[in-house]
Amino acid sequence: MRFRPYDLHLRHVFTISGDSRAVSPVVLVEVGFEGLVGYGEAALPPYLGESLQSVLRFLKQLDLSRFHNPLLIHDILEYVDRLAPGNFAAKASIDIALHDLAGKLMQQPCHRIWGLNPERTPHSSFTIGIDSPAVVARKSREAASSSILKVKLGRGTDKEIINAIRTVTAKPLYVDVNQGWTDKHEALDMIHWLKDQGVVLVEQPMPAGAVEEMAWLTQHSPLPTVADEAVQVVADVKKMAGVYSGINIKLMKCGGMRAALKMAAIARGLDLEVMLGCMVETSCAVSAAAQLSPLAKWCDLDGNLLITNDVFDGMKIVDGKVTLSERPGIGAVPLF
Amino acid sequence: MRFRPYDLHLRHVFTISGDSRAVSPVVLVEVGFEGLVGYGEAALPPYLGESLQSVLRFLKQLDLSRFHNPLLIHDILEYVDRLAPGNFAAKASIDIALHDLAGKLMQQPCHRIWGLNPERTPHSSFTIGIDSPAVVARKSREAASSSILKVKLGRGTDKEIINAIRTVTAKPLYVDVNQGWTDKHEALDMIHWLKDQGVVLVEQPMPAGAVEEMAWLTQHSPLPTVADEAVQVVADVKKMAGVYSGINIKLMKCGGMRAALKMAAIARGLDLEVMLGCMVETSCAVSAAAQLSPLAKWCDLDGNLLITNDVFDGMKIVDGKVTLSERPGIGAVPLF
Repeated sequence: MRFRPYDLHLRHVFTISGDSRAVSPVVLVEVGFEGLVGYGEAALPPYLGESLQSVLRFLKQLDLSRFHNPLLIHDILEYVDRLAPGNFAAKASIDIALHDLAGKLMQQPCHRIWGLNPERTPHSSFTIGIDSPAVVARKSREAASSSILKVKLGRGTDKEIINAIRTVTAKPLYVDVNQGWTDKHEALDMIHWLKDQGVVLVEQPMPAGAVEEMAWLTQHSPLPTVADEAVQVVADVKKMAGVYSGINIKLMKCGGMRAALKMAAIARGLDLEVMLGCMVETSCAVSAAAQLSPLAKWCDLDGNLLITNDVFDGMKIVDGKVTLSERPGIGAVPLF
Repeated sequence: MRFRPYDLHLRHVFTISGDSRAVSPVVLVEVGFEGLVGYGEAALPPYLGESLQSVLRFLKQLDLSRFHNPLLIHDILEYVDRLAPGNFAAKASIDIALHDLAGKLMQQPCHRIWGLNPERTPHSSFTIGIDSPAVVARKSREAASSSILKVKLGRGTDKEIINAIRTVTAKPLYVDVNQGWTDKHEALDMIHWLKDQGVVLVEQPMPAGAVEEMAWLTQHSPLPTVADEAVQVVADVKKMAGVYSGINIKLMKCGGMRAALKMAAIARGLDLEVMLGCMVETSCAVSAAAQLSPLAKWCDLDGNLLITNDVFDGMKIVDGKVTLSERPGIGAVPLF
């Protein structure tokens, strides 16, 4: 196993509630076996609490040589998981590399190993960071290749932002409030207004801890509500039933593809819809997430489109749709 | 695709609450692709409502030639599922054949494709049908190779049966009441007594519809309770949380390996334990179920041991433990 830090350069300074940045660090991981290499990645948005240091510290502790068969993913990930609590992005980097390696050993893409149809992928949204209404409108115009835009709201300028976008495009919109609304009645009024503006879903409208308010809001909302900050790992999914309409699964939140598959199965078993999200990351982690996309109703896999120095060639958005290749494993080829 | 009926001959006339039989029908299925053959099986215990006729009728409707890639299991099974409601054993026979074929195409056993460790399998119980205490004791003595016995109770002779078994063996026991107890307080008293006799778990102690009583019983029970008749398909699992300690997943109840995997994921996500069961069936369906056994806490995979004319060589119970091979797919080889 090898790993190294890498700095992603953002096309635009990226702002969501409470955080702005121009560079975003990742750690790139390689796991080798009998001449094949599986690639993985840990993306490190500051709000998830992991740092370059914590990931490197975690990965240095790992001794994968104790396992003689890389296909024993369940056991290997159990060992990885027990090394330390948290560290989900670090754990995801190993999980992704192992799935990539397994696919290469079986000469099949991960989606094929899971029996999924690569043509049944959803369209992906493209995220417009929080900015002045004028800048948001300009960025929306620039996102011509995307068929759905995801707009960050929750800073008191919600209607201005939506109105500004509607001066330049009529595309369907996802809105991500990042816990920004605090009153459920005002939230419901806003959702009704947003629906009239062509908004399709509302992500994390209220604080993650506002469980009763969210259950009420979901029950009354004319648009589906999607949990993001409220749902991180496998054990959280059961708490979302009856509280949100769906959950946003992200590999870096939950610890990787295996945990994500479990979360998707549990969610569907509880009548929750599945959304697939990502962080600012290369086409390595984005391609890994995309392998699950036939299981998702909604997709927001744009992390690789937000950077200028991607080091993988992988999943492509074609005419707005997540498009999987026949490449084995996660379907990402390193450019280094 | 080819299929044919086959009559299994039982070693002993097999009795559970409400049903006795000496012969049990199955339908054997083959799905071919590029020179490889995947084997599947529909087992037909009369209490599940499917018959030879209904299975043959269902299978005759199928047109798998519309799919060009047998690895698109999700799509194929969706098509199979939509052909008609119910028919879960018929659907399972196709699901098993497809998983066997997929494993052969990828040259891996199913458990390996799922990342599971074949050494982490549980022991399997061996079922003693309902009979007089003396006969039950004799059958228990004969089951020398099994490390756990599963005993059918619920016919008013529970203590006599357990006492008779305890005169011949001290092995741990699973008891399956098949909905036979009707009073929750009496049930709890009996469970306390059974625990003192070395019983490990209690399957379906009360009627499937006795939800409140079962929730109370599970909360107070010193032994885990396992749902069987109360849980059939994926959509049922969520209703078991807080009502039972675990669920008994059977391929013929739920429609096959893919549904079983989903049920196991949902169960674990709801803090329910997983038991893996079977019908009277050949080593084909038993081996298919065994592929999931590293995910199960408890196993009752003895269907092939109850018959005299098995037509597959597959999963073996070695020193009581489910033992998986490195054969591809479901790990069963036809003897015809």
